[in-house]
Amino acid sequence: MAKKVAVLAVNPVNGSGLFQYLEAFYENQIPYKVFAVSDTKEIKSNSGIPLSADDVIAHLKGHEDDYDALVFGCGDAVPVFTQHAEEPYNKDLFEVISAFGNKGKLMIGHCAAAMFFDIAGVAAGKKLAVHPLAKPAVQNGKPTDAPFEVDGNFHTAQTENTINRLLPQLIQTLK
Amino acid sequence: MAKKVAVLAVNPVNGSGLFQYLEAFYENQIPYKVFAVSDTKEIKSNSGIPLSADDVIAHLKGHEDDYDALVFGCGDAVPVFTQHAEEPYNKDLFEVISAFGNKGKLMIGHCAAAMFFDIAGVAAGKKLAVHPLAKPAVQNGKPTDAPFEVDGNFHTAQTENTINRLLPQLIQTLK
Repeated sequence: MAKKVAVLAVNPVNGSGLFQYLEAFYENQIPYKVFAVSDTKEIKSNSGIPLSADDVIAHLKGHEDDYDALVFGCGDAVPVFTQHAEEPYNKDLFEVISAFGNKGKLMIGHCAAAMFFDIAGVAAGKKLAVHPLAKPAVQNGKPTDAPFEVDGNFHTAQTENTINRLLPQLIQTLK
Repeated sequence: MAKKVAVLAVNPVNGSGLFQYLEAFYENQIPYKVFAVSDTKEIKSNSGIPLSADDVIAHLKGHEDDYDALVFGCGDAVPVFTQHAEEPYNKDLFEVISAFGNKGKLMIGHCAAAMFFDIAGVAAGKKLAVHPLAKPAVQNGKPTDAPFEVDGNFHTAQTENTINRLLPQLIQTLK
């Protein structure tokens, strides 16, 4: 049976990254639910298009066992993250990543995803593909310059432009 | 000065294709406006995510001279197109494609875009990348099996998975 995926979308989110995962999951009958890292389901793409997530991250917290995998959908919210780090939805973000990581679930993401997995303390020793600007922030994992990395339960892509190289193996794992 | 792009999004639209264009335009300061091929701005991705276009195609008709380029954002509306061919928004679709094509503007798209350009009668003799299932329907253009084609003002990709190979040259042309 296909694994069930919780997809996180920051606000704003890179639509190219988010929808490369979603359309691939859809086409391969992999069930998913999209959670906005926000206090509302209504978010925007980096490119300014309003879109609606299925739910907000507050409602994913405590329900991690309903899912087999987590996707971190990166976006322009990340460069300004520190200005909003105290928002409840961003505190929920780290709690959710920690819960998924500590339960050994599949951890998937691109761009700064590896940095968030690392800060949450669940990626120690794992090889992680990561955006060059976020690479120095990865302290406990092993950040690389590769377009993508698969190490145990971690599937990471350097940017949204290399998700296409991560997807074939990932889809097989999720099916 | 950067060229201005009108982006068409069918309903439902493949979000991976649509947002690969939009985020690339956004990151390269290429102005764009998204028009739903629908009677409402509220459409969905193939993957079921509600999203809002900037406007509807009826309001693009007659305003083609405000733009330098047209993108056809393909999606799951296309396999069932003939069931809805008489809807006003689908008649507008062909009028808009014809107007852009006859004015020699840049014609951009993936998957079945080449088929729509061909049916609209503006792609005669042009080499066009196209989805294998839509290839037999291209009568006057020259459909190919290549991942992408650039022929004069036509920039086409075989599927959403080859847009990344079309984009570098396209972005330079639009800048």
